[in-house]
Amino acid sequence: MASERHAALAARLGHRFSAPALLEQALTHRSRGAPNNERLEFLGDGVLGCVVADELYARFPQLPEGKLTRMRAGLVREEALAEIGERLGVRELLVVGAATPVTPSILADAVEAVFGAVFLDAGYAAARAAALAAIAPLLERLDERDPVKDAKTRLQELLQGRGEPLPEYRLLSRNGPPHEVECLLAVRALRTTGSGTSRQRAEQQAAQAMLANLEK
Amino acid sequence: MASERHAALAARLGHRFSAPALLEQALTHRSRGAPNNERLEFLGDGVLGCVVADELYARFPQLPEGKLTRMRAGLVREEALAEIGERLGVRELLVVGAATPVTPSILADAVEAVFGAVFLDAGYAAARAAALAAIAPLLERLDERDPVKDAKTRLQELLQGRGEPLPEYRLLSRNGPPHEVECLLAVRALRTTGSGTSRQRAEQQAAQAMLANLEK
Repeated sequence: MASERHAALAARLGHRFSAPALLEQALTHRSRGAPNNERLEFLGDGVLGCVVADELYARFPQLPEGKLTRMRAGLVREEALAEIGERLGVRELLVVGAATPVTPSILADAVEAVFGAVFLDAGYAAARAAALAAIAPLLERLDERDPVKDAKTRLQELLQGRGEPLPEYRLLSRNGPPHEVECLLAVRALRTTGSGTSRQRAEQQAAQAMLANLEK
Repeated sequence: MASERHAALAARLGHRFSAPALLEQALTHRSRGAPNNERLEFLGDGVLGCVVADELYARFPQLPEGKLTRMRAGLVREEALAEIGERLGVRELLVVGAATPVTPSILADAVEAVFGAVFLDAGYAAARAAALAAIAPLLERLDERDPVKDAKTRLQELLQGRGEPLPEYRLLSRNGPPHEVECLLAVRALRTTGSGTSRQRAEQQAAQAMLANLEK
C-alpha cells in the first residue's frame, strides 16, 4: 500500500508527518498535473541550502568562504541529490506521468521537495535533522578528501591549534615542472622540501613532510 | 561609541545579541584582516535564501515555482541587499581597510553576514524575524507590481477563489502590432477586449476590463 511505503520513507527521513499529504505531493511530478511538487521543490531548495551552509560552517571552522561555497555547490548539485534520492528510495515512490522517465533531474527535484515538505510540516529544526541524516554519507566523503584535509590545511590547523606561527612556502626552482618548493618553520628551525608537476602539488608534498616531522 | 551604535543596529534588526562580538565580526570586511565577515556572509547567504523562499511560498500560494524563483533572485540580489544595508545603517558601521571604498557589493555582503550572525546567535526563527523585518519594504513593493499582481493573475485568483471556470483568451487579429485579444467568461456570458503592442499586453488589458466588470 502506498501509505505504508510513504511511512517507510518518512522513517528513513527520521520524520513522522503530521500532514502525510505533503509527502505525497512532494513525490508527485508535474507530468501528473496539479497539485505537484514544483513549489515544494522551490521551498526545499532554500531549506537545503541553509541547512548545508549551517552544517559546513560549523563542521569546518578553518575553511575560508570560497571553499565552503564550493563544497556547498557540490552537496546540492543534481547528481548528489539524485544519489540521496536513490538511497532513500524516492525513485520507487515517485508519481510521474505515464510517458515520463524518471531522470536524475526529476529525482533530485523530488528530494528537494521532500525536504520542503518536512519543513512545512514541522519547521526548520525538523527539516535540518532530516536533511543532515540524508546527506551524512556525502558529508563523510568530504571529510576524507581535498580540499578539506589536504596536507597544507592540516599543517596550518595543527600550528594554529598550538598557537604557533604559520609556515612559509618558497619556490626553489622556477624552471619547472617539476617544481621544487621548501616549507619553512622558522621558530622551530625546521625545513622540508617537496616537488611536483605544479607548485601547489609541490607545496602539498613539502607540507606533508613537515607534518610527518611534527607528528614524530 | 561603537557598541552603542551596534546596539542601535541590533534594535533596528529587532534582535538583542547574546554574543555582540558576532555582530562586530559581521561588520568587518576582509580588508581589515582576520577575523572578518566572509564566513558569516556564506552562512547568511544560505539563511537568507531559506527565509525568502519560506516567505514567498507562504505569501503567494498561487504562483508557480518559476515566478517564485525569479522573485527570490530579485530579493537577494546585490542591489536589493545594498539598499537594505543603507536603510539599516550598516554602511556607517562597516569596518574596512583604510584604502577600501564601501561598494554596494561590500555592503550587500555585510548585510548577509549580519543575518548569519543573528542565525548563529539565536537560531533560525530569530534570523527569520530579523531578515523579514529588513526586507519588508521590498516585499511590499513586490505585492504592488508585476508579475504578482498583474491583471491576468488577479482575475485568475478571483475566479479560483469563487470556484468558477477560468477565462479564455483569444487572439482576434494576427496582423499586429497592435494585437487585439478577447477575454471570454463563457459561464457568465461575459466578453471583454484589449489591445497592445504585444499579445501579453493585450491580454492584460482584456483581463483588466473583465476584472472591472466582475468588481462592478
